[in-house]
Amino acid sequence: MNKLSILKLGGKVLEDEDLRTSVLKAFAHTPGHKILVHGGGKKADELCGLLAIPTRMHQGRRITDEATLEIVTMVYAGLINKQLVATLQSFGNNALGMSGADGNAIQAVKRPVADIDYGFAGDVSSVNADWILQLLQSGLLPVFCSITHDRRGQLLNTNADTISSEIAKSMAPHFSVDLLYCFEKEGVLDSYQKVIPRITWKSFQLLKEESIITDGMIPKLDNAFGALNAGVNSVVIGAPEVILNGGGTRVVMRDEG
Amino acid sequence: MNKLSILKLGGKVLEDEDLRTSVLKAFAHTPGHKILVHGGGKKADELCGLLAIPTRMHQGRRITDEATLEIVTMVYAGLINKQLVATLQSFGNNALGMSGADGNAIQAVKRPVADIDYGFAGDVSSVNADWILQLLQSGLLPVFCSITHDRRGQLLNTNADTISSEIAKSMAPHFSVDLLYCFEKEGVLDSYQKVIPRITWKSFQLLKEESIITDGMIPKLDNAFGALNAGVNSVVIGAPEVILNGGGTRVVMRDEG
Repeated sequence: MNKLSILKLGGKVLEDEDLRTSVLKAFAHTPGHKILVHGGGKKADELCGLLAIPTRMHQGRRITDEATLEIVTMVYAGLINKQLVATLQSFGNNALGMSGADGNAIQAVKRPVADIDYGFAGDVSSVNADWILQLLQSGLLPVFCSITHDRRGQLLNTNADTISSEIAKSMAPHFSVDLLYCFEKEGVLDSYQKVIPRITWKSFQLLKEESIITDGMIPKLDNAFGALNAGVNSVVIGAPEVILNGGGTRVVMRDEG
Repeated sequence: MNKLSILKLGGKVLEDEDLRTSVLKAFAHTPGHKILVHGGGKKADELCGLLAIPTRMHQGRRITDEATLEIVTMVYAGLINKQLVATLQSFGNNALGMSGADGNAIQAVKRPVADIDYGFAGDVSSVNADWILQLLQSGLLPVFCSITHDRRGQLLNTNADTISSEIAKSMAPHFSVDLLYCFEKEGVLDSYQKVIPRITWKSFQLLKEESIITDGMIPKLDNAFGALNAGVNSVVIGAPEVILNGGGTRVVMRDEG
């Protein structure tokens, strides 16, 4: 089976231009098919600040009112997506930047209002695997930002970790998929701030109970296990250097033999 | 020869959401292959204003410093492009939004500094006709914003009229291409503010000499004649209603017999 690497870039790695460029350079030279996924949180926060639009979060997820949706669409789908595409093009990769609306790549539904109204936040309902497959087979490198649509004209802000794992799942029947969550930390950290080299489903439950894994790391690991369950080959979480040279936290269903 | 309609949306038609939606609806139902091209000037000006970034123009063209490039990339490639794509998707058109960097669709060179330094402004050097052809043949509706790249990692702000005519030219060997420049005016106006129904190359020279055609209309018509010279079937300039129902100003090389 051919290899497909899906790299999700987030946090400070996106913000630091030099670091970002060096990660993209390493990624550009990774053999096999490739997909890049990104958010762009801090830059969106910064712009919200300058425009006096309040930033509201709940359990690591942004509450997206209409003004915030405009900002994240500008920053994620516009500025950051096109900068990443232009940089990859300069390294000889034929990158194609997209939101979920483009080519109807990723459809979502507006998250139902329960305790919290997340506003224009989307939960992925389907990935257009045929279209993504066609792009990869044409030698393109898809670059997805974390904006989707409901196919009724509404754009929706969608978690980039979820998008990565949903794309990974949809590609699992066609490729041996490696999913890499890359951010500023060296991996999932224990209570001594040391990298946990390996997390199984069982240890994840314990780490949650002991409140060693909290907040935004919980949905990230939920996404990782979801991907593994659907046939994704490997999931690694960590900083650029460790991820590209091996290292970080490896997420596995269970300890082998 | 199959028909290809290239619609360039600009000015107030982009800003007024209801008007924009009705134009897109009519365009969505136009038979044959379709490409949409857009800028997004006023919204970019507005955001520059809010962020205290000075807007500077010369002969209808924006002077693009680094801060302005960020704004136009956000507004054109992000907000407006994705809103247009999502709306077209809701009308059943499989739209794919792109800058020139995406799929290396449109390469440009930074405009050389002569009397005026236009900053990060790009002049189109090549259109990736094979890629655009492949998209059209796959049933997609490409939506281009007016941002290109130099393939060395630099994004460039590029005139949307020029992009439209360069794409039209590149498609002329493959399709019978109709190029429609759509904005808030009913067409090219004479000194009594009446629509000039027909402009030939010869009458264009006279209208310029008499200063009836001035400013931004000159490069628009230069682009129109360039397209006709390269084999584009027709060029029409006008407001949404007149353009979609016939009307506006028809640009032709010469009066027939």
